[in-house]
Amino acid sequence: MPASIASMVNNVQRVDDTWRTCTKSNSSGTSNSGGESSKESSRSSTPVLAADRTERLRDKMRRRTESGDHWFSLEFFPPRTASGAVNLVSRFDRMGSGGPLFIDITWHPAGDPGSDKETSSMMIASTAVNYCGLESILHLTCCNQTKEKITGYLSKAKHLGLKNIMALRGDPVGADWEEEEGGFNYATDLVKHIRCEFDDYFDICVAGYPTGHPEADSYDEDLRHLKEKVDAGADFIITQLFFRADTFLKFVRDCRAIGITCPILPGIFPIQGYQSLRQLVKLSKLEVPEEIMRVIEPIKDNDAAIRNYGIEQTVGMCRVLLESGNVPGLHFYTLNREVATMEVLRQLGLWIEDPRRPLPWAVSAHPKRKVEDVRPIFWASRPKSYIYRTQDWDDFPNGRWGNSSSPAFGELNDYYLFYLKSKSSKDALLKMWGEELTSEQSVYEVFTSYIKAQPNCAGHKVMCLPWNDEPLAPETNLMMDELDKVNRRGVLTINSQPTINGKPSDDPIVGWGPPGGYVFQKAYLEFFTSSENVTVLLKVLKKYEPRVNYHIVNVHGQNTTNAHDMQPNAVTWGIFPGREIVQPTVVDPVSFMYWKDEAFALWIEQWAELYDDESPSRMIIKYIHDNYFLVNLVDNDFPLDNCLWQVIDDMFELLDNPPEEQPTEQPVEQPAEESPVEDQSPK
Amino acid sequence: MPASIASMVNNVQRVDDTWRTCTKSNSSGTSNSGGESSKESSRSSTPVLAADRTERLRDKMRRRTESGDHWFSLEFFPPRTASGAVNLVSRFDRMGSGGPLFIDITWHPAGDPGSDKETSSMMIASTAVNYCGLESILHLTCCNQTKEKITGYLSKAKHLGLKNIMALRGDPVGADWEEEEGGFNYATDLVKHIRCEFDDYFDICVAGYPTGHPEADSYDEDLRHLKEKVDAGADFIITQLFFRADTFLKFVRDCRAIGITCPILPGIFPIQGYQSLRQLVKLSKLEVPEEIMRVIEPIKDNDAAIRNYGIEQTVGMCRVLLESGNVPGLHFYTLNREVATMEVLRQLGLWIEDPRRPLPWAVSAHPKRKVEDVRPIFWASRPKSYIYRTQDWDDFPNGRWGNSSSPAFGELNDYYLFYLKSKSSKDALLKMWGEELTSEQSVYEVFTSYIKAQPNCAGHKVMCLPWNDEPLAPETNLMMDELDKVNRRGVLTINSQPTINGKPSDDPIVGWGPPGGYVFQKAYLEFFTSSENVTVLLKVLKKYEPRVNYHIVNVHGQNTTNAHDMQPNAVTWGIFPGREIVQPTVVDPVSFMYWKDEAFALWIEQWAELYDDESPSRMIIKYIHDNYFLVNLVDNDFPLDNCLWQVIDDMFELLDNPPEEQPTEQPVEQPAEESPVEDQSPK
Repeated sequence: MPASIASMVNNVQRVDDTWRTCTKSNSSGTSNSGGESSKESSRSSTPVLAADRTERLRDKMRRRTESGDHWFSLEFFPPRTASGAVNLVSRFDRMGSGGPLFIDITWHPAGDPGSDKETSSMMIASTAVNYCGLESILHLTCCNQTKEKITGYLSKAKHLGLKNIMALRGDPVGADWEEEEGGFNYATDLVKHIRCEFDDYFDICVAGYPTGHPEADSYDEDLRHLKEKVDAGADFIITQLFFRADTFLKFVRDCRAIGITCPILPGIFPIQGYQSLRQLVKLSKLEVPEEIMRVIEPIKDNDAAIRNYGIEQTVGMCRVLLESGNVPGLHFYTLNREVATMEVLRQLGLWIEDPRRPLPWAVSAHPKRKVEDVRPIFWASRPKSYIYRTQDWDDFPNGRWGNSSSPAFGELNDYYLFYLKSKSSKDALLKMWGEELTSEQSVYEVFTSYIKAQPNCAGHKVMCLPWNDEPLAPETNLMMDELDKVNRRGVLTINSQPTINGKPSDDPIVGWGPPGGYVFQKAYLEFFTSSENVTVLLKVLKKYEPRVNYHIVNVHGQNTTNAHDMQPNAVTWGIFPGREIVQPTVVDPVSFMYWKDEAFALWIEQWAELYDDESPSRMIIKYIHDNYFLVNLVDNDFPLDNCLWQVIDDMFELLDNPPEEQPTEQPVEQPAEESPVEDQSPK
Repeated sequence: MPASIASMVNNVQRVDDTWRTCTKSNSSGTSNSGGESSKESSRSSTPVLAADRTERLRDKMRRRTESGDHWFSLEFFPPRTASGAVNLVSRFDRMGSGGPLFIDITWHPAGDPGSDKETSSMMIASTAVNYCGLESILHLTCCNQTKEKITGYLSKAKHLGLKNIMALRGDPVGADWEEEEGGFNYATDLVKHIRCEFDDYFDICVAGYPTGHPEADSYDEDLRHLKEKVDAGADFIITQLFFRADTFLKFVRDCRAIGITCPILPGIFPIQGYQSLRQLVKLSKLEVPEEIMRVIEPIKDNDAAIRNYGIEQTVGMCRVLLESGNVPGLHFYTLNREVATMEVLRQLGLWIEDPRRPLPWAVSAHPKRKVEDVRPIFWASRPKSYIYRTQDWDDFPNGRWGNSSSPAFGELNDYYLFYLKSKSSKDALLKMWGEELTSEQSVYEVFTSYIKAQPNCAGHKVMCLPWNDEPLAPETNLMMDELDKVNRRGVLTINSQPTINGKPSDDPIVGWGPPGGYVFQKAYLEFFTSSENVTVLLKVLKKYEPRVNYHIVNVHGQNTTNAHDMQPNAVTWGIFPGREIVQPTVVDPVSFMYWKDEAFALWIEQWAELYDDESPSRMIIKYIHDNYFLVNLVDNDFPLDNCLWQVIDDMFELLDNPPEEQPTEQPVEQPAEESPVEDQSPK
């Protein structure tokens, strides 16, 4: 947040022309800008996707303003370390669930913000968009930068799927900074440059100062500069923080009075601690009002008390803002913390964990993927990996699988991106997955502990598995007993879904898509199991032709299937009013072979490598990796009860009573000699 | 048939090279041949289409031979007149329902066989393929033809979607015919030419002579010539007719002995009359065996008796052939007649009216349309019109509607092809639709008579309507009572389907697609009705939002809808084992506007024009055309009972009791004064 504030300390000078009249530079390779947004595909758009997914930010804002539906947004700064990045991305997922209209990521000129480092502003914003599905604004400061450098950043942002820029001047380097002829002297110059080079591609946000910019000659002059930024092509304004609702409401009135008509979002800062408040005040040259200091000074060493006060004070101020009718949404400076902001939002009734989903999987916010409406089921628990491995695709299957013959998945050795690393430490993983494994059976116990969400024999809850970063999904929970039973016997399940025969699309557990529709699923079960089990399973599966489709493969790619080589099997679909059918999840035979590599590799990379070389524990995992098969089963008969558990039962039954060993010495139908049970069946 | 026989009278000379070694001519514009069959689309193939639809004929033949599944095929000759063509095309539809593996169309050099005339061999074969969905072989004779001419015919055939050629020499013109250096002297030359110019694009059939070709020096020499034809690139042989099974079986043995390994299909000729038999014998120079002449001579004036004998004799011979194990299928010389051939096939158990359909509509056999798996519902009763109006499309929507924004339907004034003409005469139509109409009500009565399949007031059954060439479909019959009721009151239905919530795909009435699947429908209703009704209907429809989607349009294109402008609504879909979802029928808003033109035009072109200019009858139809609206309704809530009848009932109710006339003088809640009913509710 200090950086965020620093980045707002600028914008002092006027300009004469607007972005509409500028001429494009022809020197850069990025002059093919702007056209993309209007290049509409000739095919019809993906039916169930809410307007949310395809609308640009300014249009969403307008729509929600017109409907009187208040929103919120969240500002974050990039982390310092890789593990900080992993944590921030989980925070995006958690805070994303409350429904922010957008988030924004600040820009730190000193921190290599445009690089490919996992901690850079650029990469964090890209991750938020592509992997967390969040509408995001990337800050960009132009002070002391060449046009080529700025154009390079913008091109990169566009390429990564970023669609919104917060255009800032940034802090001059050195005290003797002077205006540069033709350079970026003010945020207005940056706004013009963006419009000039990228036409209308980006939505542009600029900063507003409710008490005037500290460097401005006067409040009025600062307002005029703000108007210039808007006239240059900015779409909306986010303000610097303030402590009194009146400050902001007067600022809005003054803006409107001089003809600024775009949305103006108040920057809300919940006070979260004494030190951070002091630092902030120093940097922003803002004054904390008497009435606030009077409360805080006496409790300055009590963090909890200050935070509670901050929440109360913020909620009160936000209520006044929202009730004024001049505030369509609130922008929160989170300081990368969750608690205070979430609490404020909950008290305001703005934090809404909407169980409705446009599709059964979380959609990416990259504009290239806006038509994406089908994915293989295999990555259901590893959506970020799927997004990463398909990021170079030019086209996303829309209704059918398309080029499944050459899906060109990213190489396995590329995919260990920072946000795919486990959030747990090696130590925590060893506690969950076993300090020392003694047999395959000890592996089975890890799986059952995970499924039951119960402590393992060492007393530690198993919260994740290499294939499942999160606890079981609610719908999978419905099958907990069956899953538990089969994992105990070495059917190590990593993915499954129950049969669903026409539940309403707003069902809180299994629903997705627009209201008034019906969703369906074919039962699916995916597991690792031994080659001995597979041999017997294949015999059993003969009885279930053609009801059950299977693919069975080992790490070497030895593959057995009764399904068409190339034809995907739709296992999740939805029927909606006035729409085409949507089938967002398929069992695709081709991509299964790519998933197979990933699924087997996770045994080694995430589990075996926790142990010493040559240790028995590592050998056990290695043995499973080398010898087990990955199996997937689909029950095509969705109107009937799921038969896949029966398939596994039949396999156990045949394992327990192999045909050779059937007790032929004992006649099966021999009458019992004990006291005969009374026949209770009606004759 | 005489022409067919005539066209087989050839092939006398040997050749030295095979088609594999020939060099292509570079002079013609058709040298880009052959590649098309291997140019596979990158998208996955349409899921439910049986192998039948994409396999080439020789592969189908091999598959069925290997499975021991006997087949039959049918030969027709082109008609002399346009009305003969209309009749022949209906015969294709009827005889196609018995499941021929293919049909073939003979070539009449004297009759302009390659022209665009509706009676030409080329056009008849094209109609069979494109409009009747029949795998077809076009005969082609080469005698006295230039290579350019032949290449032109072949290119045209390929362009029209024909994939199989029966390569024949044909009859020399004039008695003093001599071999021509480099010309087409024998069928072998034609086979080579086809392979040379079109690579492997066409499947090629050649003629075989069980008793030797009449012009050949010997039976053995004729066999050697046959081998040359096969070596030149023919895929299979159809024989001249014969009268004894032994004749054919010996011929097959002799062919195998000299190394002819391709399928050899016996040409079966059911004797249907004395004259046609005599004529045939004369042309073909075949001898009718003693034992047959002995039976026929005494009954030569009794057509029925001869036909019955022919059936009996043919069935007996075919049984011997099939039981020999050397005959995979039977080829019938139908003489363009139905009865005898169908009866023989029925007795042999080969005539199988398979209710299973790959899709709910009849598929076209054009290779370009092999991926077609979705159509607008509007043309459900006019599939040939739909095929005609979309024949220039390069690409058929596969799963989604694709370019529905510019579907480029053929112009309405183009579409009155001969096979879209009514099969009934003007006189018959007047009897069905009314010699004289007195009011709109008389039109309503025509519709109800059609729906009930009952005679109209003049005592004539109404077998068709301008929008419906055939009697009601079986599934529509399920709704007969409701249809009758609404048509009586001027809701003039032209298309409808009931709700279906997951019936097995092999359901005899509504099933389609591969076995083991489930089919679904949203209820659909399409009708013309007066603007007065529409005004009230729109009020009623407000109550059914968003359950019911509607499009309401008049002849001028004035359009009211609550559906998305561009988004099709899937109204028929199927879920199959191991497959993607298939949605073969949609209500597409864009193509509805094209259908609207056609649907309104049919009032005038097919009905009004039966009457004199300025006659009251014509004025009544014209009035309806000018003032009625075309309405379609979809009930999106397919798991519930169809609500569309309730919508219409509500409309009638509101028409009968408009709000102004509600009986406000009688208080609604007034307690009954009669004996109070005992209160049975639990307190």
